[in-house]
Amino acid sequence: MTTTSTRLGELVDRFGGHLIGSPDIMLAGIAPLSDADERHITFLSNAKLRAQAAATRAAALILTAADHAQIAADYAGACIVTPHPYVYFARAAQYFASLKAIPALAGIHPSAWVSPHAIVAASASIGAHVSIEAEAVIGENVVIGAGVAIGRGVGIADHTQVHANVSIYDYCSIGRRCIVHSGAVIGADGFGFANERGNWIKIPQTGRVLIGDDVEIGANTSIDRGALTDTVIEEGVKLDNQIQIGHNCHIGAHTAMAGCVGVAGSARIGKYCTFGGAAMVLGHLTIADHVHISSGSMVSRSILEAGQYTGFYPLAKNADWEKTAAIVRNLSGMREKIRQLEKTIKTLTEKSS
Amino acid sequence: MTTTSTRLGELVDRFGGHLIGSPDIMLAGIAPLSDADERHITFLSNAKLRAQAAATRAAALILTAADHAQIAADYAGACIVTPHPYVYFARAAQYFASLKAIPALAGIHPSAWVSPHAIVAASASIGAHVSIEAEAVIGENVVIGAGVAIGRGVGIADHTQVHANVSIYDYCSIGRRCIVHSGAVIGADGFGFANERGNWIKIPQTGRVLIGDDVEIGANTSIDRGALTDTVIEEGVKLDNQIQIGHNCHIGAHTAMAGCVGVAGSARIGKYCTFGGAAMVLGHLTIADHVHISSGSMVSRSILEAGQYTGFYPLAKNADWEKTAAIVRNLSGMREKIRQLEKTIKTLTEKSS
Amino acid sequence: MTTTSTRLGELVDRFGGHLIGSPDIMLAGIAPLSDADERHITFLSNAKLRAQAAATRAAALILTAADHAQIAADYAGACIVTPHPYVYFARAAQYFASLKAIPALAGIHPSAWVSPHAIVAASASIGAHVSIEAEAVIGENVVIGAGVAIGRGVGIADHTQVHANVSIYDYCSIGRRCIVHSGAVIGADGFGFANERGNWIKIPQTGRVLIGDDVEIGANTSIDRGALTDTVIEEGVKLDNQIQIGHNCHIGAHTAMAGCVGVAGSARIGKYCTFGGAAMVLGHLTIADHVHISSGSMVSRSILEAGQYTGFYPLAKNADWEKTAAIVRNLSGMREKIRQLEKTIKTLTEKSS
Repeated sequence: MTTTSTRLGELVDRFGGHLIGSPDIMLAGIAPLSDADERHITFLSNAKLRAQAAATRAAALILTAADHAQIAADYAGACIVTPHPYVYFARAAQYFASLKAIPALAGIHPSAWVSPHAIVAASASIGAHVSIEAEAVIGENVVIGAGVAIGRGVGIADHTQVHANVSIYDYCSIGRRCIVHSGAVIGADGFGFANERGNWIKIPQTGRVLIGDDVEIGANTSIDRGALTDTVIEEGVKLDNQIQIGHNCHIGAHTAMAGCVGVAGSARIGKYCTFGGAAMVLGHLTIADHVHISSGSMVSRSILEAGQYTGFYPLAKNADWEKTAAIVRNLSGMREKIRQLEKTIKTLTEKSS
Repeated sequence: MTTTSTRLGELVDRFGGHLIGSPDIMLAGIAPLSDADERHITFLSNAKLRAQAAATRAAALILTAADHAQIAADYAGACIVTPHPYVYFARAAQYFASLKAIPALAGIHPSAWVSPHAIVAASASIGAHVSIEAEAVIGENVVIGAGVAIGRGVGIADHTQVHANVSIYDYCSIGRRCIVHSGAVIGADGFGFANERGNWIKIPQTGRVLIGDDVEIGANTSIDRGALTDTVIEEGVKLDNQIQIGHNCHIGAHTAMAGCVGVAGSARIGKYCTFGGAAMVLGHLTIADHVHISSGSMVSRSILEAGQYTGFYPLAKNADWEKTAAIVRNLSGMREKIRQLEKTIKTLTEKSS
Repeated sequence: MTTTSTRLGELVDRFGGHLIGSPDIMLAGIAPLSDADERHITFLSNAKLRAQAAATRAAALILTAADHAQIAADYAGACIVTPHPYVYFARAAQYFASLKAIPALAGIHPSAWVSPHAIVAASASIGAHVSIEAEAVIGENVVIGAGVAIGRGVGIADHTQVHANVSIYDYCSIGRRCIVHSGAVIGADGFGFANERGNWIKIPQTGRVLIGDDVEIGANTSIDRGALTDTVIEEGVKLDNQIQIGHNCHIGAHTAMAGCVGVAGSARIGKYCTFGGAAMVLGHLTIADHVHISSGSMVSRSILEAGQYTGFYPLAKNADWEKTAAIVRNLSGMREKIRQLEKTIKTLTEKSS
């Protein structure tokens, strides 16, 4: 059994920050304030939890200078002072996780099938029952999980991890350091048909999906290939589970989408946007950079100005909803009633003056 | 060809109820009132269908004493009288289905790959192209379908059935008598990132998914592993298809969710709740026991009181919706207009008095 | 490298239309107006783009006689005149795609597992790590991608293509010329339970899924088997990605559903309907032929009249939504206020007259 204990000073050497206390304090891991004990380092990223932080039993605390000043009277333990404790937490947690990780074995599992016309780096790890078609190129240190199907001419760049049972269609490409979760489907046909007297005539989908570096794609998420041109996911995009990205979409760098989001075809979404869960975007729209869409909202027109946008029906007790929904259905009747009142009042006012 | 005929008395011996008529009536199966003929037993679980039940050609009828009293004048056939005909139907249907079921063969399919460091019960059935990593433990009478990928240290308890192409990540565990449908993904990384000047820094997801006994998980449903602690699905929970459960959620026993539901991270949902299709729950909320959320409703705040809650925009003809939606967009204008009217009327009233 | 150049006259020979210009013009492919150059044929299917079409550098243009008359003064290049340019584009694009397609090899991949009691046509192509259970029947020219799991007694008719990692449960059947995309699950259990004092008692799902000819099923879409009878998808239906079809649904011919649609159990949907993305249909409803549901709309009652129906909350800047949502929550208060105003005005009017 390997020990995963780490000196507090090791974190500061790796990730910076101002150390208060002994660098020789030993840490078994990182834990949230609610769970941390004397084996852990913990973090304060929410000023509301200052009192809880001051009382922590943890071996050390990551926090801002401002929070440190506030709790210094009550907390005499070790600290790492940094402007961004939550980012520091993420980095420290990555480090502790890396100590416990069991590295994937380089090489091709005997049950995998790899075309003799594919190129697989010697450092790549290809799991059980994987299939890799001709002309695919698998980069250094790539890890492919069990049952993944990789089509003809697919490119997967260095250090990318593809989890079990992912399907990647012909000629799609995935950048470096990406993570693709199980059940994701990359490059299925876009939904494109011409209608001829009620019958749907398929428009062949001959574009690709091009995915940049540092993209994460959630479980059971689908990204369709383009019709004549490509679907593009720029670097740093993070997609949660159960997301649908239609053909020819273009998603700008560092945009993040929570679970169950749907984006219809040919939408062009800016950089640094966020989409709450189950938000939906209609096709052929343009969304500017730095737009934030709330959960459950339907985006039915282009948004050219940064900001937060929302559109979902507020929840209520069912009986109350029944009442308000009936009024919503007849809002134009209510508007008409108000107009009538206005007229009557105008008449009354004229009479009385 | 095996015969699957069953004596009516056999059902009463197994599942109770008061038999009226001969126990020797032979039944080929169970069918709904609309389809049943003289080979079937059928059931009346909806008082509106009494007349249809009284006229049934079925060999026997499952119903309540109250319904029996109502139709006794018109129906002289065999009956099983029970307080819960629909539950009796479920049990009888399970019994008839078991007669026709082809049992899975115990043993490991020659095309499967099982780590020498995994433990697989001799009575388990492991399908084609399955992979099972080290330290996994597969219990008695477990059935694993083709192409399932089972990660390191996974536990699957006795009598659980996992259908084809499911993916289960490292260290997750599944209870007894569960059913996991194809395409489900259990234990993918939760969606957790710290934001550093626009870039997303991954927070490693080191918790597990823990699933209790008697849970059913639908096709293409995803349940994420926890970040630092675990995601928990208690016993008897039923999840339909295409559901997303975020990291660190806790779902109470016997709660049921219909298709396309999404639950964001760290939501804590009570026992005996129901969620209609495509209902959505935001993160970090608490939902009490016995809460029922209607289909298509967005839960954006905690619900601490049992009851039925709803929030979706009522459907209308598109032209009518265009009108009411325009008014909704300007409801604050309408409210202002009403305030103006109130003032004017107040002035008029004062004048006239 | 094979050349894929085609004479313009070849298209007219295959797909009709009235040719203006030389049949010997050589075409490398088809491209949209925005991208086409002298190697391409392009098409005009939107009258707003007439000016762009008249200025195209493309080798030839597909358009209507009316559009041709409008731009003839400005455009002297080759044309194919047809009543339906978009349909013509679809057919021409299919033709060009077929020239570049690499045909699947007939035969069974050595890593596939096929039951000796299954029947596979000699012209079918069975990919790596496929499994096919007993009594399954795979037709002529069927192509099965890597990792597909085909259950007992499944039928897949001629010329159908099933992409990687699809799961098809026992006894389901798929028609001719269908396309099933990766991650789709056909025939998982419907969500059927009887409730006994809070516990869910499973109702066995013993029906099948029956899919007609020329159906396309998107990535990660799920279609549940029926409970006692079958789930039916008629010919020509097109389902996009991430769709959920509940048990015992019946979807009429040539209906199309965009991504993320959900249809609850026993819904009966007509022919030639369309459903926008993320539309939801409750269970046991009837939808007539030629009904069109807008994206994001919840269908909570049967629709017996053809037409377009909509129901989603309009998007707004978050601050505006906060205001209008608060009013929506209290619409019955607003209605009461209007009633009070009406009374007061009535009194005033009576006084003043």
